[in-house]
Amino acid sequence: MIRRLALLGVGLIGGSLMRALKAEQAVEHVVGYGREEENLQQALELGVIDEIATSVADAVCNADMVVVAVPLGAVKALLDEMKEHLAEDAVVTDVGSVKWSVVRDAQQVFDGVVPPWFIPGHPIAGTENSGAASALTALYQGRRVILTPLDNRDEAALNKVTAMWKKAGAEVVEMGVQHHDEVLAATSHLPHLLAYGLVDVLARQETSREIFHFAAGGFRDFSRIASSNPTMWRDISLANRKPLLDTLDQFRKELDEIEAMIRGREGDGLLELFSRAKQARDDHYE
Amino acid sequence: MIRRLALLGVGLIGGSLMRALKAEQAVEHVVGYGREEENLQQALELGVIDEIATSVADAVCNADMVVVAVPLGAVKALLDEMKEHLAEDAVVTDVGSVKWSVVRDAQQVFDGVVPPWFIPGHPIAGTENSGAASALTALYQGRRVILTPLDNRDEAALNKVTAMWKKAGAEVVEMGVQHHDEVLAATSHLPHLLAYGLVDVLARQETSREIFHFAAGGFRDFSRIASSNPTMWRDISLANRKPLLDTLDQFRKELDEIEAMIRGREGDGLLELFSRAKQARDDHYE
Repeated sequence: MIRRLALLGVGLIGGSLMRALKAEQAVEHVVGYGREEENLQQALELGVIDEIATSVADAVCNADMVVVAVPLGAVKALLDEMKEHLAEDAVVTDVGSVKWSVVRDAQQVFDGVVPPWFIPGHPIAGTENSGAASALTALYQGRRVILTPLDNRDEAALNKVTAMWKKAGAEVVEMGVQHHDEVLAATSHLPHLLAYGLVDVLARQETSREIFHFAAGGFRDFSRIASSNPTMWRDISLANRKPLLDTLDQFRKELDEIEAMIRGREGDGLLELFSRAKQARDDHYE
Repeated sequence: MIRRLALLGVGLIGGSLMRALKAEQAVEHVVGYGREEENLQQALELGVIDEIATSVADAVCNADMVVVAVPLGAVKALLDEMKEHLAEDAVVTDVGSVKWSVVRDAQQVFDGVVPPWFIPGHPIAGTENSGAASALTALYQGRRVILTPLDNRDEAALNKVTAMWKKAGAEVVEMGVQHHDEVLAATSHLPHLLAYGLVDVLARQETSREIFHFAAGGFRDFSRIASSNPTMWRDISLANRKPLLDTLDQFRKELDEIEAMIRGREGDGLLELFSRAKQARDDHYE
């Protein structure tokens, strides 16, 4: 049971975790901190949080669990602000989509070493919506949460964060920081870039109204992730720069191959590639 | 009311049209022709068709409506086979995703001129499933069907095809052949290439099992179209070669731009691009 939880950043991800923990009576009191007053008021009215804090210091004061759920670009400043105000027994975790940048931020703030009570985490869940009002109690049911604890982690802190996510319905797995970032670059970050890029290139065309008008259902699904929060995805793109550029490079080579086959009218090659892709997807999702 | 409809190719697209027409009692008798015996038997048992024809000649004999619903690569041979056997009052239409290739096939088969009773068409609908068993009565409800009639079209033939699709619940619009192919290259064909390419590049990696394991919901939506029929998409990629290569070229320039911004850590530029894309998508779908 969490006594007092400080939620820094009250959006879809943090808000959904609070809803799930409250539904399970796994937290006594939630203090929310954020930059948008209206969003915080809404979170309070909806029961996502129990109290609004007006500073990070007030939020984390006496909290035994601190959840950092802001875009990656805002993590370091928050760690800085909380540094002198954390309780003795506080455990801190985050939900950032890139783990290396959070680890580096923590190292810089805490004198070169990630503190043993800081457990980096990343729930593999979300929708294209954002804000406290879009929080869902069931968002993490059956979904995976990846924790990337460092070698010096405090086992009790790791257990506490693991237990919290399990209470929210998630399956918790552990992974190395760099490996996490490479896997996510391929499965999440690159697809977002492609979706944003495709929608943008269509929107720039003279006939864009007509183009969207005649887009079929497949396009709607394909482009759904281009409705995601642009600030969050700017931060992710920069924070995971190296793995993302590597996976983009591999994808470009694949596009080169496909283009060459279309140019050369190589029907057999296209059929083989499309069949292989279909097989891979069907194997994993059917 | 259609008296006798010859459905050449009994898959998702043609089968769903038959289900819709039968539900509206807009067709008396459906004769199906196709290459897969098992699929035809299933279509007969499910009531998608009323009779199996063993040749194209038998299928189109006495039919007042002929619907060609096969992959683009198989259209020309079918037109050739039906040529000498069509009834006096027969109207022929198709459902191909590329109109130029169908028009060229018809020109070649019918001595250089698309016959006035041939009305090229394309329903903007589908799922990633295929085969008669996946046919849905409501597939075309509220969806758009693009007809690309040529200047010499017979107005009665055009009206008959238009009425058929309206009976199936679709909104029918007319468009030029080339314009259709350019619009579809951007909104449908390119997204399919990107989805196939991304899934294939991930599947080729050593850690592909793990990669798919940790793919989030966004990836599932994004990659759904990579489960589409590979033969159909090989044919589309080749049939719409020029417009597809043009739109792929534009997309590559967009990717260059995004890559340069990530390399140069241009957060403002990324935020602007992602925001513009989100806005465009939300404007069209919310």
